[in-house]
This record gives sequence, C-alpha cells and structure tokens, in this order.
Amino acid sequence: MVGIIMGSQSDLPIMEQAANFLKSLDIPYELTVVSAHRTPERMFDYAKTAQERGLKVIVAGAGGAAHLPGMVASCTTLPVIGVPILSSNSIDGWDSVLSILQMPGGIPVATVALNGALNAGILAAKILGSGNEKVAHKLQQYQDSLKDKVLGTVDDIKEMHPNQYDK
Amino acid sequence: MVGIIMGSQSDLPIMEQAANFLKSLDIPYELTVVSAHRTPERMFDYAKTAQERGLKVIVAGAGGAAHLPGMVASCTTLPVIGVPILSSNSIDGWDSVLSILQMPGGIPVATVALNGALNAGILAAKILGSGNEKVAHKLQQYQDSLKDKVLGTVDDIKEMHPNQYDK
Amino acid sequence: MVGIIMGSQSDLPIMEQAANFLKSLDIPYELTVVSAHRTPERMFDYAKTAQERGLKVIVAGAGGAAHLPGMVASCTTLPVIGVPILSSNSIDGWDSVLSILQMPGGIPVATVALNGALNAGILAAKILGSGNEKVAHKLQQYQDSLKDKVLGTVDDIKEMHPNQYDK
Amino acid sequence: MVGIIMGSQSDLPIMEQAANFLKSLDIPYELTVVSAHRTPERMFDYAKTAQERGLKVIVAGAGGAAHLPGMVASCTTLPVIGVPILSSNSIDGWDSVLSILQMPGGIPVATVALNGALNAGILAAKILGSGNEKVAHKLQQYQDSLKDKVLGTVDDIKEMHPNQYDK
Amino acid sequence: MVGIIMGSQSDLPIMEQAANFLKSLDIPYELTVVSAHRTPERMFDYAKTAQERGLKVIVAGAGGAAHLPGMVASCTTLPVIGVPILSSNSIDGWDSVLSILQMPGGIPVATVALNGALNAGILAAKILGSGNEKVAHKLQQYQDSLKDKVLGTVDDIKEMHPNQYDK
Amino acid sequence: MVGIIMGSQSDLPIMEQAANFLKSLDIPYELTVVSAHRTPERMFDYAKTAQERGLKVIVAGAGGAAHLPGMVASCTTLPVIGVPILSSNSIDGWDSVLSILQMPGGIPVATVALNGALNAGILAAKILGSGNEKVAHKLQQYQDSLKDKVLGTVDDIKEMHPNQYDK
Amino acid sequence: MVGIIMGSQSDLPIMEQAANFLKSLDIPYELTVVSAHRTPERMFDYAKTAQERGLKVIVAGAGGAAHLPGMVASCTTLPVIGVPILSSNSIDGWDSVLSILQMPGGIPVATVALNGALNAGILAAKILGSGNEKVAHKLQQYQDSLKDKVLGTVDDIKEMHPNQYDK
Amino acid sequence: MVGIIMGSQSDLPIMEQAANFLKSLDIPYELTVVSAHRTPERMFDYAKTAQERGLKVIVAGAGGAAHLPGMVASCTTLPVIGVPILSSNSIDGWDSVLSILQMPGGIPVATVALNGALNAGILAAKILGSGNEKVAHKLQQYQDSLKDKVLGTVDDIKEMHPNQYDK
Repeated sequence: MVGIIMGSQSDLPIMEQAANFLKSLDIPYELTVVSAHRTPERMFDYAKTAQERGLKVIVAGAGGAAHLPGMVASCTTLPVIGVPILSSNSIDGWDSVLSILQMPGGIPVATVALNGALNAGILAAKILGSGNEKVAHKLQQYQDSLKDKVLGTVDDIKEMHPNQYDK
Repeated sequence: MVGIIMGSQSDLPIMEQAANFLKSLDIPYELTVVSAHRTPERMFDYAKTAQERGLKVIVAGAGGAAHLPGMVASCTTLPVIGVPILSSNSIDGWDSVLSILQMPGGIPVATVALNGALNAGILAAKILGSGNEKVAHKLQQYQDSLKDKVLGTVDDIKEMHPNQYDK
Repeated sequence: MVGIIMGSQSDLPIMEQAANFLKSLDIPYELTVVSAHRTPERMFDYAKTAQERGLKVIVAGAGGAAHLPGMVASCTTLPVIGVPILSSNSIDGWDSVLSILQMPGGIPVATVALNGALNAGILAAKILGSGNEKVAHKLQQYQDSLKDKVLGTVDDIKEMHPNQYDK
Repeated sequence: MVGIIMGSQSDLPIMEQAANFLKSLDIPYELTVVSAHRTPERMFDYAKTAQERGLKVIVAGAGGAAHLPGMVASCTTLPVIGVPILSSNSIDGWDSVLSILQMPGGIPVATVALNGALNAGILAAKILGSGNEKVAHKLQQYQDSLKDKVLGTVDDIKEMHPNQYDK
Repeated sequence: MVGIIMGSQSDLPIMEQAANFLKSLDIPYELTVVSAHRTPERMFDYAKTAQERGLKVIVAGAGGAAHLPGMVASCTTLPVIGVPILSSNSIDGWDSVLSILQMPGGIPVATVALNGALNAGILAAKILGSGNEKVAHKLQQYQDSLKDKVLGTVDDIKEMHPNQYDK
Repeated sequence: MVGIIMGSQSDLPIMEQAANFLKSLDIPYELTVVSAHRTPERMFDYAKTAQERGLKVIVAGAGGAAHLPGMVASCTTLPVIGVPILSSNSIDGWDSVLSILQMPGGIPVATVALNGALNAGILAAKILGSGNEKVAHKLQQYQDSLKDKVLGTVDDIKEMHPNQYDK
Repeated sequence: MVGIIMGSQSDLPIMEQAANFLKSLDIPYELTVVSAHRTPERMFDYAKTAQERGLKVIVAGAGGAAHLPGMVASCTTLPVIGVPILSSNSIDGWDSVLSILQMPGGIPVATVALNGALNAGILAAKILGSGNEKVAHKLQQYQDSLKDKVLGTVDDIKEMHPNQYDK
Repeated sequence: MVGIIMGSQSDLPIMEQAANFLKSLDIPYELTVVSAHRTPERMFDYAKTAQERGLKVIVAGAGGAAHLPGMVASCTTLPVIGVPILSSNSIDGWDSVLSILQMPGGIPVATVALNGALNAGILAAKILGSGNEKVAHKLQQYQDSLKDKVLGTVDDIKEMHPNQYDK
C-alpha cells in the first residue's frame, strides 16, 4: 500500500493526481493531511508506524519551506517520494524544490518535478513493480498508452498545420 | 541487483559513493559508463535490457544538460534514480538539477541532491528494502549509525567550545 | 528541407511560427510531433533517417526537462536548432533553457530564446542561405522589412507622445 | 539563557560566532549539535523542553535542505533564529536560505544572512535586551563600537589612497 | 508595544496581518507608514525614539530595494523584524528578500518569508512572550489552534477523495 | 536636452514615464524608437550625432537581450542611462537587467530598476541639475513632494486600520 | 570559411577550441578580436563584409553584457553562433548566457553552452556539412570517435571500481 | 568634484579604481568610508552636505544588503552612482546588485556592473563632461585608447593562434 500525505488541504488538487494514478492501476493507497509544522507529533507518528501499517512507499507533498518529505524520511526506512508544490507562499517554486531535493547525505528523498504528483504516483508504482510482475506489466501498458496518445496527435497536427510530413 | 551508470568517467568519484554504500549492505550492483549523447544506442540497449538482466533499480548520474536519467526512464518500467552532477561544464549545478528533475508527466525520475550519489545508493536500498525485511533491517542499522555519529560529536563540540550545555 | 519537431501537440502554437516563416520564404519543411520520453524509438528513427530523407536542418522544440533537441543531435550530423518552450510544467522557463543549451562538448544544439520558434525558423533559413544565394537574398529582404517596420513606427510614436524629435 | 544548536559539527566554526558574541556580553548560553534528519527524537526533545530548561531564545543553524530551525520552531513558543549555512552540499546557499526563510503562516523563523551566526547572536541579545535594560545598554555600547571601528579606518584609507577628503 | 511600519500605503493589506494577529492576542501596537527613501528623517526619528516611546519590537515591511528594516535596525537596539514585500516593482520578490536578509555583521534583521507579515506578528509576540508567561500561554493556544485546523481537514479530505485511510 | 530612445514601440507606455517627468520639470527632450538589432545604422547614427545635436544625456530602454543602451554608450561620451524593460520575450526581466547592467570595463551604462523609466527621467534631470541650480531646485521640490505624499497617507492608514499610533 | 571573433584577447583560450576543431577537419577559418563596445566600427565593418569575404558562418564569443554575437547577427544574413564566455566580470555566466540567447524575434543567434567554443566549432562544421557530404562524413567520424572514447573507458572504470558489470 | 564613498575599508581595492580613473583625467575627488548601517548619522551628514561642499556626483559602493547608495540618493539631488560589491558576505553578488538597482520610483541610483568601480569613475566623468567640453574631450581620448588597446592585440592573437585572418 502507498501512503500519500500533504502539508495542507490546499495541496489536494495536485496530490490526488498521485492517488488517481494508483487507483487506475488497482494499487491500494491511503491519503491524508499531515503538516510537519502544525502537527509535528502526527507527522512523527505517521512516519514511525508507516511500515508496520503495511505501507511500502510514502508520497509526501509540500510547498514553501517544505519539510514534510525530508522529516518523514528521517523517521522510516521506507522510500519517500517528495512532491514540491507551487503553493501560494512560494517564490516561483524554488523554495519548495530546494527544501525537498537538497537533503543531506544519509537521508534521501526521491524528488519529482514541481507539482509532479502524477509522476510521484507513477514512481510509487514503479517501486512496487520492481518486485511485482503484475504491476510492472500494467506500467508497461501505461507507458505504451502514452506513446499511443502522442502518435494519435500526429494526424491532428498535420490537419491543424498542413505540411510535407508524410509518415 | 542495482545498475549504476554515469555519463562520463569523470563522474566516477561521485558515483562510486552509491556503489560503496550498496557494497556495505551486501547488495549486488553493476557499474559502468553510458553516455546519452555520445553512445545513444548503448543507452537504449542498457535501458531496454535492464529488467531482463535482473536489475530492480537504476541509478544514473550526469551533469550539464543531463539527459541520461530521463532517457533511461523512458525505456524501462524500473524505477530510475537521477543524480545531478556538478560537472565542470555546469552552471553552478542548476542545469544538472533541472534537466533531471523537471521530467514531464508520465516519465518520473527520482531525483536526489546535487552530487548526492550516496543518497542515490541509500534510496536504491530503500526501494529494495521496501519488499525485503533483511535489507530494511540493515537500513535501520545504518540510520541508527548516523544518529550515533551525531551523538558522538556532542562531547567533541563541548570540548572545542566549552559551554553550559549539560546533557 | 527543414524538419520541425516538437515534444507535444501543446507546443504547436509556438512551433508553427518556425514553419510559417519558412513557408513565407518558400522553403519546404515537414512538421510533426516526436516525444523524446514518450516515443523514444520514433525519436531515434526520426533522427537517424533525417539526412537520407533529405533534411538539411532540424528544428526541435520542447519544455521542462527538454531532452528532444539534444538527443536528436546525438543521432545525426545535421545541425539541430533547439527551441526552449515555456510549457505549463516549467519553472519560469529555466529548465527548458538549461536542458537544451548546456550540452556537453561534442554534441552542440543551436539554442534560441525561450519560445523563440520564429528565430529558429529564421536561423534554419540562414543555415540554408549560407550556401544558397536565393535564400540569402530573401533573408536580406526580410531583414530590411524589419527595419522598415521599425521606421514605420517613428511617426506613430511622435503622434502618441508629441516631442521635439525631428528626423 | 540562549540555546545554540547546529545540524552538524562542521557548522561549528560559523555557529560559535553567535556563542562568542553572547559570551562577550556575559549572556549565558548552551551550544550543542542537534540534527533534524539524523537525530529527530533529540531535536523534538530539545525543542519541547527548551522553555522549561530556562531558554528564552533558540539559535539554530543548518545547511542544504535545512529543516532544523523550522522544525524546532514548530515545537516551541520560544522565538527561533535560523542561520542558513553555506555547507559543502549546498547550491550557493540558496537551498539553505529558502528552506529556513520561507516558513508557512503560523510558524515563523527569524532568519539572518547566509552564514550570519554573529548576527544571530546579536539578534538573540536584542531579544533579551528588549526587556532588560542592562543588556540593551551593552548592545548600545557594541553598536557604538562598530561606529568607532569604521571611523578608525577613515585615516587608514586616506593614507592608503591619498585624496582631497578632509573631515 | 510593537511598532509596525511599512514603506508605502500599498503594503497595508499585507502588513495589517501582523497587526491583526497582535490584536487577537491583546498585544498593543502602533502602525504607520515610514519610507526610508522618501521620508528618511521620519525614519531616523522613528527608529531613534522607538525605545523611549515604549516599543519592544519593530516590524518593518518593504519591497524592491527594501532598505527600511535594515536602516531602522542600524538606529536602535530593539529587535527589528523585516517583511519582504512582493511589490509591483519587485523581480519576483528576490530583491525584497535579499536586501532585507543579507545584512552585514553587526546589524541583524529578523527576516520572515516573502509577504510573511502574519509570521512577523507572531514572531513579535514570541519575542514578547519570551519574558512574559501570559503571552507565551496565548501563543501555545494559537499553535494548538493551528493543529486543530489541520486535524479538522482530515475528514474533509477523505470525503473529497475517498481512500483507505482510517485513523 | 535629453534623448529618449527605445527598442520597440511596445516599450512606449514604460518609456514615456521618463519623458513625462522631464516635461513636468520643463526640461526639453526628444523621444523616438531606435532598434539596435533591426536598425543598427540608425542606432549608430543616433549615438554618433547625439552630442552635436545638443543632447546632454541619453535614456535608452530595451528588453530581452537588450543591447541598445550599451551599444549607444560605446559610440558617445555622453552619459547613457539604461532602462531594462520587462518585455514579453523576457525571462522575468533577468535578461533585460543583466544585458544592460553588466557592461565591460570602459563603457558604463547607468542602469535603473526593471521598468524604471520614471527613475531614468529623474536621473537624467539630476545629471543636468548637477551643473544647473534651477533644475536642482526643481528636483528638491519634487523630492519634497514625494515626502508630502507619504505623509499624506499617514492619516489614511490610521483610518483604514485604527491603531495606537499618535503622531 | 568560418569567421571566429571574440570580444577580448582573454577569450582566446576558450575560443581557439572552435578553431582547433575546424583545423582538425581541414575547414578554413580566420580568427581575430572584435569588440562590440570598444571597436564598434570594426564590428560593423566585419559583419557587413563577412559574406563578400567568403565567410559562410560566424562564431562570436563574449562575456558579461555580451553584445557581440547579437550585433553581428543584426548586420548579416549569415548564421551567427554565439559563445557565452564565463569572463572575470560575469555573474556566474548568467549575464553572458542571457544577453546572447534572448535575442528578439527577427535576429537569431545560435547559442551554445557557457564556454562551449568546441561545440561552436562543431556546429559551424555541421552547418557547412549540411550541404557538403565530405564535411558530413568527417563529422560522422568525429561523432564515432566520441563513442569510441566512451567505450574505451568502460574497462578503466571496471578496473578502478571492480563490480559485477559484464558486457 | 566627485565624492567616492564605500561601506567598508575592505571595498577599497575595488573602489579606488574609480578614484584612479578620475585622477588620470585630472578630475578632483574625495574618497572615504561611510557605512549606512554602522555610521548612519555620518551617512546622512555626508549626503546632506554634499552639494554645498561642492560635489557634483557621488559614487557609492557597498556589498550584501547594500543600502548606502540608495540612502545617500534619498538625501540629495545630486546624481548617485552605485557600485555593487561582491563582498565576502554576498550570495554571488545578487544581493549587492538587487539592493542597489531596484530602487523605488522617485529615488534613482545609477547602477553599474558588479565590482564595476572603474565604470563608476568613467560614468562620473561622463556626467561632468556632459556640460564640460574639456572633460568630454579627455573621455573621447580615453575611449579611443580602449580601441587602440583592442587593435593592439590583433597581431598578438594571430601570433598566438596562426590563422587565415588578414586585415
């Protein structure tokens, strides 16, 4: 099971992209709000009991001085994926990115792109799929569907902008 | 097994920190050079055969316009960890970081800190440990050793700078 | 002939500025979508067959961790012009710019300004015109027209903001 | 009493500047190492017991993804001063600055300049001096001494670079 | 009493967040406009008489080349809290942040996040509360209310995005 | 007389702020469009004849890779004031600022803030006023009016946000 | 023939990498110093006579507020390649990069990486090779040699860091 | 006469470049240290008496949160030239540049490049020369000497790197 947490309810529209991806692959997940700064005990408790509650991966999103992913990572041996959120109090996202990415030696956070919660969900599935053929197979199907979607636009583009391309 | 690749031989001093960590945990790995730009076929071949060769995770390091981690991720369902390298042709590392981190929706790369190859090795172990109790146990021991190292400096610090701290 | 490719259909409004310029100079071109990350085989195939299909220059636009121009450049001896796109998942365009510009020694990409697809089209024409007097002549006419457009605003400006300028 | 903590022993040469300033004003302090990521329990314990142990202000220094000041601030009502350290794993200090400065609404950290531990010590004294005339008086003397030092260089400068200045 | 000043009337919507917080804690404050560049004498006068007028802390907000907090700090021994404002003439807030944060050794400004006037108000209260149990108690209540607000969203989130989380 | 030039008609809404200020002080000026890249000969001609046409100062505004101020400065001994414009093709204004500010030793450009055309007009007046008492007097009146405008908002602010301030 | 120019003699160690590459491919070139700011007439003359002197491509390197590539591009229809130089008066290279890259619509400069003069030389050859099979063939050989160099390090790396890689 | 001031004695090696240039043109100057933060009264006094003491231009250099140029500008109608210094406590010079450049509307500072004190001296001379033919003539000679120095390196460069250039 994948645990998805976020620092604030306002992060939900971004963070549920991770959840929706997992749902589309029938991977169970839980999703809730855990604030490093406003509910530090809840955060510690969440991180410390994660493994025994059956989580295999944790996805944590936060913005600004984003301490949630790194602090959770410091309290568990589970892999933690960090999603920098472009929150309203962020300076163009740089604070969110750097305070998640630049963890010191010893405590890694697997950081994805700014607002990249979809990719966090995919990465969580890839981690599970690394030891699970069924998930790996579904991921291959997903990756193939991305390709099909691109190929599906080839004719659209030619119609929108007629040109010599012929393939 | 973990695959460790780097864009250039000059990345070895950084990238072997990932390898050395895995070795310290008795996790098997392979390590070689694969350049996205100078050996694109080798890169594709490496990525496409990774799973069948028994790899569970790939760690890829590169600097400047660092395309190796993202391109490898586009050709496999395995989780790919990207290590931005502060190479000599980099602008303070920003190019390395952004061209690895900011992957489009669909193709995640688990990015760690600039020159964070040690953390990439630990993250690879965490991914393996997520489904392997023995590895998880070793990771807990490692995390405990970090704590011990910090506590071991408490007295040093008091000796170097005498003060009222008494605990 | 000039090949124009882009990482996603959403790049079309920017990238067709390159096409439209070439059309205005009667330079033949093809234009399609090729995604480095979602259709890597298509990208390799495109790049490797470009020369034999008669292309002289390739213009490639992409945003975020933009690997398309650099990866295409690694698979052909044709000059590749890179257009950094300010896509929705970009951090103010810095990721797009740096992941196209900062190519390692050996594999250049001729980078133009953020969203600078018009300039990419002009640059492609300049490259063709370097060995083709007719194209060079048309480029000179275009450059003269830019001058005329500026001079055409001199009186407008004086009317909008009356002042002592008299020339 | 002022509590001074740092994320790593390597921060001591910077952080003891805060301690030395307090010592010069006869303000008692304690100084030790507390790592947010490697000793999270110690950090929580330190923060939660700070007030009852008699601390009035906490100065916390850290580098990279610097979570120590913000996490300590989340567990106490004492004012916390954050010192961004330009550690070896930092990207020119931007990560250290932003991950300390950009705290969310509700949990402030009083951030000083990069490596500004001296100013953190002075700020701690100003906070104490705000309700303590004796400290305020010493601070005034210190501020006067800064002025005297500048004025003391006026003649030096004229000697090193003779010029018409006469005052 | 806390003094709240700002460089321009346009800063009021941000800066009154500091005032409103203090009001909610029954901490007296004054609030006015003082421009470092347009009313330098008023600024000097404000800073130099602050202590004798009974102020314990000064909160100063400004944008762009924001000199108000630092200049006020140079003329008083009171702690000065600086609020970088994202004013219309600012480059994404970087000028506001850096010209407040990067004070030279000797003259600290306690800098909070961009537009972080609420946190400036809280920090002012923490400074007063450091020597005042009643204020400290109210701050603890405020910090508890933040926690309650987060916990209050847990059920909302589950309703908005149903999932396996059960706690 | 002051010469005001800009790289494009689209810069007029910003650049006429310089003109309007000069007009308010009865300082004669001319204003027109001169593009470094599209009308290089016109630019050279403008710069080289500026002094003989009676100009004392040149104000030049441009955006993106803004070469106009620096190139004009290279062809005249008149002081040149550069106004970085946040044009539509600019990356948050950084390109405009840096390509005007960072002139090599020997050829200075007096750079003002991003979009700071008003300040460019004031600076031009200050340069003229440096040797002209009448202009200096008007500038003092203008500077006093800024002060009066600030003081005029003091009561407004107190009305909008009632507080203890009494002065 | 390729024209190589630079803003200052101090750029020679970087810029001769372009020349040396062209020499290795037997492509004729000329190389000299042309300063946009200190010798503007020479620059104009160079650019305007470039085509008639038989140049097919111009490579221009400069640092800081680097106007040389863009100004030369404004005076010729030849393709101009810009090399941002990390000169001593540059802010980490950002000024050099942005003032070359961010050219306005109409006047492109083919920008390469910071200090990327080698790549500028290769790009010049690619432009010539686009219409010249012999040059294209040599470029293919060069590109193959890059691949061979990488493959040549595979065994070195295994010797320096023994591991399970076997291919 | 030109007034040259700097925030600290450590700025002298940079700032005396302005003085030396003025000396070479026989323009009288005074040079001293004035710290905005450590000697605010001295700064105010300096600025307010500048005009009556016969100064025509003020050159002010400072680093970090550099308030000296802007604060001096707020207290005089003389033109003020700001020199951002890359001091030891600066973040790559960005703080110095932005806190001098980004002055609010009404109070301009003529900013030159980072460490650009030579250019500040030249700009001061240009301002004086704007109304003084003798100074203007000397500036023309200086500008010509720059050109001669560049031309003087043409043969050197050809000797250091033999090539086909013949002009």
